[in-house]
Amino acid sequence: MRYAARVEVRLRPGIADPEGATIERALPALGFDDVREVRAGRSFRFEVDADDEDGARRRAEELAHRLLANPVIEDSEVEVHQMAPAGGSR
Amino acid sequence: MRYAARVEVRLRPGIADPEGATIERALPALGFDDVREVRAGRSFRFEVDADDEDGARRRAEELAHRLLANPVIEDSEVEVHQMAPAGGSR
Repeated sequence: MRYAARVEVRLRPGIADPEGATIERALPALGFDDVREVRAGRSFRFEVDADDEDGARRRAEELAHRLLANPVIEDSEVEVHQMAPAGGSR
Repeated sequence: MRYAARVEVRLRPGIADPEGATIERALPALGFDDVREVRAGRSFRFEVDADDEDGARRRAEELAHRLLANPVIEDSEVEVHQMAPAGGSR
């Protein structure tokens, strides 16, 4: 079975986020004074072949931890769902 | 009320994604031959003050379209949910 995975990689709380801070500083001048606590991260989407959803999630988490996130400064969050059968293209 | 927003910014289908392609090329040698179609994107989290969830979503979408995504090559996806009252810290 084919599963669609999304991994969000975020800086751990307390780790400085210059990109988010720069965006946040620009917001009031742009009319967004109702927005704060901006944090920037990365997102990855991919497809996994696995026997079941648990297996797909395990593989996605393994990939996230080994290759996508830097565990010293980043957390990752994995979501997995089964793709529609036949024609899993985008 | 305070709302937590997450914006995922992704390259539109058909736009070349060198980062995703590089990761995907490395996967078989690293034992991940069950993974494909890797696409890299960006993710942003922030907080919005608004009267209701619709208002918060509108503001988050406006911010995404005006500042976070490049609409020529990127799509953005916005999720919003109300934060627990009192102490909206992380």
